[in-house]
Amino acid sequence: MKTCVLYSGGKDSSLMAVILQKLGYQVELVTLNFGVFNSFKPASKSAASLGFKHIVLDADTKIIEKATNIILNDGFPNNGINYIHKEALDMVSDSYDVIADGTRRDDRVPKLKDGEISSIENRKNIEYLNLHGFGYKTINYLSQNLFQIKKEQSNMENNSDYEVEIRYLINKWKGKNKTDEIFPVHLQSRVTGWKKEIKENI
Amino acid sequence: MKTCVLYSGGKDSSLMAVILQKLGYQVELVTLNFGVFNSFKPASKSAASLGFKHIVLDADTKIIEKATNIILNDGFPNNGINYIHKEALDMVSDSYDVIADGTRRDDRVPKLKDGEISSIENRKNIEYLNLHGFGYKTINYLSQNLFQIKKEQSNMENNSDYEVEIRYLINKWKGKNKTDEIFPVHLQSRVTGWKKEIKENI
Repeated sequence: MKTCVLYSGGKDSSLMAVILQKLGYQVELVTLNFGVFNSFKPASKSAASLGFKHIVLDADTKIIEKATNIILNDGFPNNGINYIHKEALDMVSDSYDVIADGTRRDDRVPKLKDGEISSIENRKNIEYLNLHGFGYKTINYLSQNLFQIKKEQSNMENNSDYEVEIRYLINKWKGKNKTDEIFPVHLQSRVTGWKKEIKENI
Repeated sequence: MKTCVLYSGGKDSSLMAVILQKLGYQVELVTLNFGVFNSFKPASKSAASLGFKHIVLDADTKIIEKATNIILNDGFPNNGINYIHKEALDMVSDSYDVIADGTRRDDRVPKLKDGEISSIENRKNIEYLNLHGFGYKTINYLSQNLFQIKKEQSNMENNSDYEVEIRYLINKWKGKNKTDEIFPVHLQSRVTGWKKEIKENI
Protein backbone atom coordinates (compact mmCIF):
# COMPACT_ATOMS: atom_id res chain seq x y z
CA MET A 1 0.00 0.00 0.00
CA LYS A 2 1.19 3.50 -0.86
CA THR A 3 2.30 4.90 2.45
CA CYS A 4 3.23 8.43 3.46
CA VAL A 5 5.02 9.53 6.60
CA LEU A 6 4.77 13.27 7.22
CA TYR A 7 8.42 14.02 7.74
CA SER A 8 10.39 16.69 9.56
CA GLY A 9 13.84 15.05 9.65
CA GLY A 10 13.49 14.51 13.41
CA LYS A 11 13.83 11.22 15.28
CA ASP A 12 10.10 10.64 15.80
CA SER A 13 9.04 10.75 12.16
CA SER A 14 12.22 8.87 11.18
CA LEU A 15 11.37 6.09 13.64
CA MET A 16 7.79 5.88 12.34
CA ALA A 17 9.21 5.47 8.82
CA VAL A 18 11.55 2.69 9.94
CA ILE A 19 8.80 0.78 11.77
CA LEU A 20 6.52 0.92 8.73
CA GLN A 21 9.33 -0.13 6.41
CA LYS A 22 10.14 -3.09 8.68
CA LEU A 23 6.45 -4.07 8.53
CA GLY A 24 6.62 -4.18 4.74
CA TYR A 25 5.04 -0.84 3.78
CA GLN A 26 6.44 1.05 0.80
CA VAL A 27 7.25 4.26 2.62
CA GLU A 28 7.53 7.72 1.09
CA LEU A 29 8.54 10.60 3.33
CA VAL A 30 6.55 13.75 2.64
CA THR A 31 7.31 17.30 3.77
CA LEU A 32 4.90 20.10 2.98
CA ASN A 33 6.11 23.46 1.79
CA PHE A 34 3.80 26.46 1.88
CA GLY A 35 5.86 28.60 -0.50
CA VAL A 36 7.14 31.22 1.91
CA PHE A 37 10.53 29.72 2.90
CA ASN A 38 12.50 26.65 1.75
CA SER A 39 12.20 24.93 5.12
CA PHE A 40 12.11 21.44 3.61
CA LYS A 41 15.88 21.23 3.04
CA PRO A 42 16.88 19.70 6.40
CA ALA A 43 14.17 17.02 5.99
CA SER A 44 15.43 16.25 2.47
CA LYS A 45 18.96 15.77 3.82
CA SER A 46 17.77 13.52 6.68
CA ALA A 47 15.64 11.43 4.32
CA ALA A 48 18.56 11.03 1.91
CA SER A 49 20.88 10.07 4.78
CA LEU A 50 18.52 7.16 5.60
CA GLY A 51 17.91 6.22 1.96
CA PHE A 52 14.18 6.97 1.92
CA LYS A 53 12.32 8.54 -1.00
CA HIS A 54 11.45 12.12 -0.04
CA ILE A 55 8.74 14.23 -1.61
CA VAL A 56 8.21 17.94 -1.06
CA LEU A 57 4.57 18.73 -1.57
CA ASP A 58 3.59 22.29 -2.48
CA ALA A 59 0.78 23.44 -0.24
CA ASP A 60 -1.39 26.54 -0.36
CA THR A 61 0.29 29.61 1.18
CA LYS A 62 -3.11 30.60 2.59
CA ILE A 63 -2.86 27.68 5.06
CA ILE A 64 0.37 28.88 6.64
CA GLU A 65 -0.93 32.46 6.64
CA LYS A 66 -4.13 31.40 8.40
CA ALA A 67 -2.13 29.34 10.93
CA THR A 68 0.15 32.31 11.59
CA ASN A 69 -2.83 34.56 12.18
CA ILE A 70 -4.33 32.02 14.61
CA ILE A 71 -1.00 31.91 16.47
CA LEU A 72 -0.64 35.70 16.59
CA ASN A 73 -4.20 36.04 17.90
CA ASP A 74 -3.72 33.29 20.50
CA GLY A 75 -0.23 34.38 21.51
CA PHE A 76 0.86 30.70 21.52
CA PRO A 77 1.42 28.10 18.77
CA ASN A 78 -0.79 25.11 19.70
CA ASN A 79 -4.00 25.80 17.76
CA GLY A 80 -2.22 27.11 14.69
CA ILE A 81 0.12 24.12 14.53
CA ASN A 82 -2.78 21.68 14.97
CA TYR A 83 -4.67 23.46 12.20
CA ILE A 84 -1.74 23.08 9.79
CA HIS A 85 -1.25 19.43 10.72
CA LYS A 86 -4.88 18.57 10.02
CA GLU A 87 -4.69 20.39 6.68
CA ALA A 88 -1.49 18.45 5.90
CA LEU A 89 -3.09 15.09 6.69
CA ASP A 90 -6.11 16.00 4.60
CA MET A 91 -3.89 16.92 1.68
CA VAL A 92 -1.74 13.76 1.67
CA SER A 93 -4.87 11.63 2.15
CA ASP A 94 -5.77 12.36 -1.46
CA SER A 95 -2.63 10.57 -2.71
CA TYR A 96 -1.90 7.79 -0.18
CA ASP A 97 -3.75 4.80 1.31
CA VAL A 98 -1.84 4.89 4.58
CA ILE A 99 -0.71 8.11 6.21
CA ALA A 100 1.42 8.35 9.31
CA ASP A 101 3.27 10.84 11.42
CA GLY A 102 5.69 10.69 14.32
CA THR A 103 3.42 12.04 17.07
CA ARG A 104 4.01 10.08 20.26
CA ARG A 105 2.10 9.48 23.48
CA ASP A 106 3.49 12.48 25.35
CA ASP A 107 3.30 14.96 22.47
CA ARG A 108 0.78 17.71 22.98
CA VAL A 109 1.10 19.49 19.60
CA PRO A 110 0.44 18.56 16.88
CA LYS A 111 -1.95 15.89 18.05
CA LEU A 112 -5.21 14.53 16.68
CA LYS A 113 -8.00 13.51 19.05
CA ASP A 114 -9.33 9.94 18.59
CA GLY A 115 -12.52 11.36 17.07
CA GLU A 116 -10.53 13.42 14.56
CA ILE A 117 -8.63 10.28 13.56
CA SER A 118 -11.84 8.31 12.96
CA SER A 119 -13.20 11.25 11.01
CA ILE A 120 -10.27 11.49 8.58
CA GLU A 121 -10.02 7.67 8.23
CA ASN A 122 -13.68 7.44 7.25
CA ARG A 123 -13.94 10.62 5.23
CA LYS A 124 -10.82 9.92 3.15
CA ASN A 125 -10.90 6.10 3.26
CA ILE A 126 -7.34 5.91 4.54
CA GLU A 127 -5.55 4.41 7.51
CA TYR A 128 -3.86 6.83 9.89
CA LEU A 129 -0.97 5.69 12.11
CA ASN A 130 1.21 7.42 14.65
CA LEU A 131 3.55 6.63 17.56
CA HIS A 132 0.94 7.13 20.28
CA GLY A 133 1.77 3.69 21.69
CA PHE A 134 5.31 4.84 22.54
CA GLY A 135 6.55 7.39 25.07
CA TYR A 136 9.62 9.64 24.85
CA LYS A 137 11.87 7.23 26.80
CA THR A 138 11.20 4.44 24.30
CA ILE A 139 11.64 6.73 21.30
CA ASN A 140 14.91 8.10 22.66
CA TYR A 141 16.20 4.59 23.28
CA LEU A 142 15.24 3.34 19.83
CA SER A 143 16.40 6.40 17.92
CA GLN A 144 19.77 6.39 19.70
CA ASN A 145 20.18 2.75 18.67
CA LEU A 146 19.14 3.32 15.07
CA PHE A 147 20.24 6.79 14.04
CA GLN A 148 23.10 9.24 14.08
CA ILE A 149 21.52 12.33 15.57
CA LYS A 150 22.64 15.95 15.67
CA LYS A 151 21.32 18.01 18.58
CA GLU A 152 21.45 21.77 18.30
CA GLN A 153 19.60 24.99 19.04
CA SER A 154 16.69 25.35 16.62
CA ASN A 155 17.15 27.92 13.86
CA MET A 156 15.68 28.66 10.43
CA GLU A 157 18.10 26.37 8.62
CA ASN A 158 18.34 23.19 10.70
CA ASN A 159 14.81 21.82 10.92
CA SER A 160 11.70 21.35 8.79
CA ASP A 161 8.99 21.72 11.39
CA TYR A 162 5.89 23.73 10.45
CA GLU A 163 7.30 26.29 12.87
CA VAL A 164 9.99 27.45 10.44
CA GLU A 165 7.71 28.92 7.79
CA ILE A 166 5.51 30.43 10.52
CA ARG A 167 8.59 32.06 12.06
CA TYR A 168 9.46 33.47 8.66
CA LEU A 169 6.01 35.05 8.38
CA ILE A 170 5.99 36.45 11.93
CA ASN A 171 9.48 37.87 11.34
CA LYS A 172 8.16 39.58 8.22
CA TRP A 173 4.86 40.77 9.70
CA LYS A 174 5.78 41.60 13.29
CA GLY A 175 9.57 41.48 13.65
CA LYS A 176 12.00 39.03 15.21
CA ASN A 177 11.15 39.90 18.82
CA LYS A 178 7.57 38.67 18.35
CA THR A 179 8.83 35.45 16.73
CA ASP A 180 11.20 34.74 19.62
CA GLU A 181 8.42 35.42 22.11
CA ILE A 182 6.11 32.83 20.50
CA PHE A 183 8.77 30.31 19.47
CA PRO A 184 11.65 30.46 21.97
CA VAL A 185 14.85 28.83 20.72
CA HIS A 186 14.95 25.20 21.89
CA LEU A 187 17.20 22.17 21.61
CA GLN A 188 16.16 19.97 18.72
CA SER A 189 17.34 16.72 17.17
CA ARG A 190 17.93 16.03 13.51
CA VAL A 191 18.64 12.62 12.03
CA THR A 192 21.84 12.61 9.95
CA GLY A 193 22.14 8.89 9.10
CA TRP A 194 22.06 5.31 10.33
CA LYS A 195 24.20 4.09 13.16
CA LYS A 196 27.01 2.22 11.39
CA GLU A 197 26.14 -1.24 12.74
CA ILE A 198 22.48 -0.75 11.79
CA LYS A 199 23.23 0.34 8.22
CA GLU A 200 24.93 -2.97 7.55
CA ASN A 201 21.71 -4.82 8.38
CA ILE A 202 19.30 -2.69 6.37
CA MET B 1 16.42 -4.74 27.40
CA LYS B 2 14.30 -7.47 28.95
CA THR B 3 10.94 -7.04 27.31
CA CYS B 4 7.57 -8.55 28.13
CA VAL B 5 4.47 -8.60 25.96
CA LEU B 6 1.31 -9.54 27.85
CA TYR B 7 0.06 -12.25 25.55
CA SER B 8 -3.32 -13.78 24.80
CA GLY B 9 -2.52 -15.62 21.55
CA GLY B 10 -4.59 -13.10 19.59
CA LYS B 11 -3.46 -11.02 16.62
CA ASP B 12 -3.00 -7.76 18.52
CA SER B 13 -0.53 -9.01 21.13
CA SER B 14 1.18 -11.15 18.47
CA LEU B 15 1.68 -8.07 16.27
CA MET B 16 3.06 -6.07 19.20
CA ALA B 17 5.57 -8.89 19.81
CA VAL B 18 6.65 -8.90 16.15
CA ILE B 19 7.10 -5.12 16.02
CA LEU B 20 9.26 -5.14 19.15
CA GLN B 21 11.30 -8.08 17.87
CA LYS B 22 11.88 -6.27 14.57
CA LEU B 23 13.09 -3.24 16.56
CA GLY B 24 15.67 -5.39 18.31
CA TYR B 25 14.00 -6.06 21.67
CA GLN B 26 14.45 -9.48 23.28
CA VAL B 27 10.80 -10.34 23.59
CA GLU B 28 9.24 -12.76 26.06
CA LEU B 29 5.52 -13.41 25.84
CA VAL B 30 3.85 -13.55 29.24
CA THR B 31 0.41 -14.90 30.11
CA LEU B 32 -0.90 -14.64 33.64
CA ASN B 33 -2.70 -17.53 35.28
CA PHE B 34 -4.75 -16.97 38.42
CA GLY B 35 -4.92 -20.61 39.42
CA VAL B 36 -8.59 -21.28 38.79
CA PHE B 37 -8.49 -22.66 35.20
CA ASN B 38 -5.65 -23.52 32.78
CA SER B 39 -6.61 -20.78 30.34
CA PHE B 40 -3.01 -20.15 29.25
CA LYS B 41 -2.85 -23.17 26.90
CA PRO B 42 -4.08 -21.48 23.70
CA ALA B 43 -1.55 -18.64 24.27
CA SER B 44 1.24 -21.20 24.77
CA LYS B 45 0.34 -22.86 21.47
CA SER B 46 0.21 -19.54 19.58
CA ALA B 47 3.55 -18.43 21.07
CA ALA B 48 5.16 -21.74 20.11
CA SER B 49 3.72 -21.51 16.59
CA LEU B 50 5.54 -18.17 16.15
CA GLY B 51 8.73 -19.33 17.88
CA PHE B 52 8.57 -16.91 20.79
CA LYS B 53 9.55 -17.76 24.37
CA HIS B 54 6.37 -18.00 26.44
CA ILE B 55 6.12 -17.67 30.20
CA VAL B 56 3.06 -18.45 32.30
CA LEU B 57 3.18 -16.35 35.43
CA ASP B 58 1.27 -17.53 38.48
CA ALA B 59 -0.80 -14.68 39.86
CA ASP B 60 -2.80 -14.36 43.06
CA THR B 61 -6.23 -15.99 42.85
CA LYS B 62 -7.58 -13.10 44.93
CA ILE B 63 -7.09 -10.77 41.93
CA ILE B 64 -9.36 -12.80 39.63
CA GLU B 65 -11.88 -13.23 42.45
CA LYS B 66 -11.96 -9.50 43.12
CA ALA B 67 -12.33 -8.79 39.38
CA THR B 68 -15.18 -11.28 39.15
CA ASN B 69 -16.94 -9.65 42.07
CA ILE B 70 -16.54 -6.22 40.46
CA ILE B 71 -18.02 -7.60 37.23
CA LEU B 72 -20.94 -9.30 39.01
CA ASN B 73 -21.71 -6.10 40.92
CA ASP B 74 -21.47 -3.94 37.78
CA GLY B 75 -23.30 -6.40 35.54
CA PHE B 76 -20.70 -5.73 32.78
CA PRO B 77 -17.02 -6.62 32.37
CA ASN B 78 -15.20 -3.31 31.75
CA ASN B 79 -14.09 -2.26 35.23
CA GLY B 80 -13.17 -5.78 36.32
CA ILE B 81 -11.09 -6.41 33.19
CA ASN B 82 -9.31 -3.05 33.56
CA TYR B 83 -8.59 -3.87 37.20
CA ILE B 84 -6.97 -7.21 36.25
CA HIS B 85 -4.96 -5.62 33.46
CA LYS B 86 -3.51 -2.97 35.77
CA GLU B 87 -2.61 -5.66 38.33
CA ALA B 88 -0.99 -7.70 35.53
CA LEU B 89 1.11 -4.75 34.35
CA ASP B 90 2.13 -4.02 37.93
CA MET B 91 3.20 -7.60 38.42
CA VAL B 92 5.31 -7.96 35.27
CA SER B 93 6.88 -4.54 35.94
CA ASP B 94 8.85 -6.14 38.76
CA SER B 95 10.69 -8.44 36.32
CA TYR B 96 10.98 -6.51 33.04
CA ASP B 97 12.37 -3.15 31.88
CA VAL B 98 9.93 -2.80 28.99
CA ILE B 99 6.35 -4.02 29.18
CA ALA B 100 3.90 -3.99 26.33
CA ASP B 101 0.47 -5.18 25.39
CA GLY B 102 -1.60 -5.32 22.23
CA THR B 103 -4.21 -2.68 23.09
CA ARG B 104 -4.94 -0.61 20.01
CA ARG B 105 -6.45 2.81 19.32
CA ASP B 106 -10.06 1.62 19.09
CA ASP B 107 -9.96 -0.79 22.03
CA ARG B 108 -12.08 0.26 24.96
CA VAL B 109 -11.17 -2.53 27.44
CA PRO B 110 -8.61 -3.15 28.74
CA LYS B 111 -7.17 0.31 28.27
CA LEU B 112 -4.94 2.50 30.39
CA LYS B 113 -5.48 6.25 30.50
CA ASP B 114 -2.42 8.38 29.66
CA GLY B 115 -2.13 9.35 33.34
CA GLU B 116 -2.16 5.70 34.41
CA ILE B 117 0.63 4.98 31.93
CA SER B 118 2.80 7.81 33.28
CA SER B 119 2.07 6.58 36.79
CA ILE B 120 3.22 3.01 36.20
CA GLU B 121 6.24 4.13 34.13
CA ASN B 122 7.45 6.39 36.92
CA ARG B 123 6.47 4.22 39.88
CA LYS B 124 8.07 1.06 38.47
CA ASN B 125 10.82 2.69 36.37
CA ILE B 126 9.76 0.83 33.24
CA GLU B 127 8.69 1.72 29.73
CA TYR B 128 5.15 0.81 28.71
CA LEU B 129 4.22 0.35 25.05
CA ASN B 130 1.05 -0.56 23.25
CA LEU B 131 -0.56 -0.38 19.79
CA HIS B 132 -2.48 2.84 20.42
CA GLY B 133 -0.95 4.34 17.28
CA PHE B 134 -2.73 1.75 15.10
CA GLY B 135 -6.42 1.22 14.40
CA TYR B 136 -8.24 -2.04 13.69
CA LYS B 137 -7.98 -1.70 9.90
CA THR B 138 -4.19 -1.48 10.07
CA ILE B 139 -3.93 -4.34 12.57
CA ASN B 140 -6.17 -6.55 10.45
CA TYR B 141 -4.13 -5.79 7.35
CA LEU B 142 -0.79 -6.48 9.05
CA SER B 143 -1.90 -9.58 10.92
CA GLN B 144 -3.42 -11.08 7.78
CA ASN B 145 -0.09 -10.52 6.02
CA LEU B 146 1.99 -11.93 8.85
CA PHE B 147 0.00 -14.68 10.52
CA GLN B 148 -2.12 -17.75 9.96
CA ILE B 149 -5.24 -16.98 11.94
CA LYS B 150 -8.09 -19.17 13.12
CA LYS B 151 -11.42 -17.42 13.66
CA GLU B 152 -14.02 -19.17 15.78
CA GLN B 153 -16.70 -18.68 18.41
CA SER B 154 -15.07 -17.98 21.77
CA ASN B 155 -15.14 -20.84 24.27
CA MET B 156 -13.24 -21.92 27.39
CA GLU B 157 -10.59 -23.79 25.41
CA ASN B 158 -9.67 -21.58 22.48
CA ASN B 159 -8.44 -18.30 23.96
CA SER B 160 -6.36 -17.00 26.86
CA ASP B 161 -8.11 -13.71 27.56
CA TYR B 162 -8.67 -12.74 31.20
CA GLU B 163 -12.32 -13.47 30.42
CA VAL B 164 -11.81 -17.25 30.50
CA GLU B 165 -10.91 -17.60 34.16
CA ILE B 166 -13.61 -15.08 35.09
CA ARG B 167 -16.15 -17.15 33.15
CA TYR B 168 -14.99 -20.22 35.06
CA LEU B 169 -15.63 -18.45 38.37
CA ILE B 170 -19.04 -17.05 37.35
CA ASN B 171 -20.05 -20.52 36.10
CA LYS B 172 -19.10 -21.92 39.49
CA TRP B 173 -20.63 -19.15 41.60
CA LYS B 174 -23.74 -18.21 39.62
CA GLY B 175 -24.23 -20.75 36.85
CA LYS B 176 -23.72 -20.71 33.10
CA ASN B 177 -26.69 -18.46 32.32
CA LYS B 178 -25.13 -15.61 34.27
CA THR B 179 -21.80 -16.13 32.48
CA ASP B 180 -23.43 -16.04 29.05
CA GLU B 181 -25.34 -12.88 30.03
CA ILE B 182 -22.14 -11.03 30.97
CA PHE B 183 -19.85 -12.55 28.33
CA PRO B 184 -21.90 -13.35 25.21
CA VAL B 185 -20.18 -15.77 22.84
CA HIS B 186 -18.31 -13.77 20.18
CA LEU B 187 -16.09 -14.37 17.17
CA GLN B 188 -12.43 -14.31 18.13
CA SER B 189 -9.13 -14.74 16.33
CA ARG B 190 -6.22 -16.91 17.40
CA VAL B 191 -2.79 -16.90 15.81
CA THR B 192 -1.71 -20.38 14.71
CA GLY B 193 1.57 -19.62 12.92
CA TRP B 194 3.38 -17.47 10.39
CA LYS B 195 2.19 -17.02 6.85
CA LYS B 196 4.47 -19.33 4.85
CA GLU B 197 6.18 -16.58 2.85
CA ILE B 198 6.85 -14.60 6.04
CA LYS B 199 8.35 -17.53 7.92
CA GLU B 200 11.06 -17.84 5.29
CA ASN B 201 12.22 -14.27 6.02
CA ILE B 202 12.20 -14.44 9.83
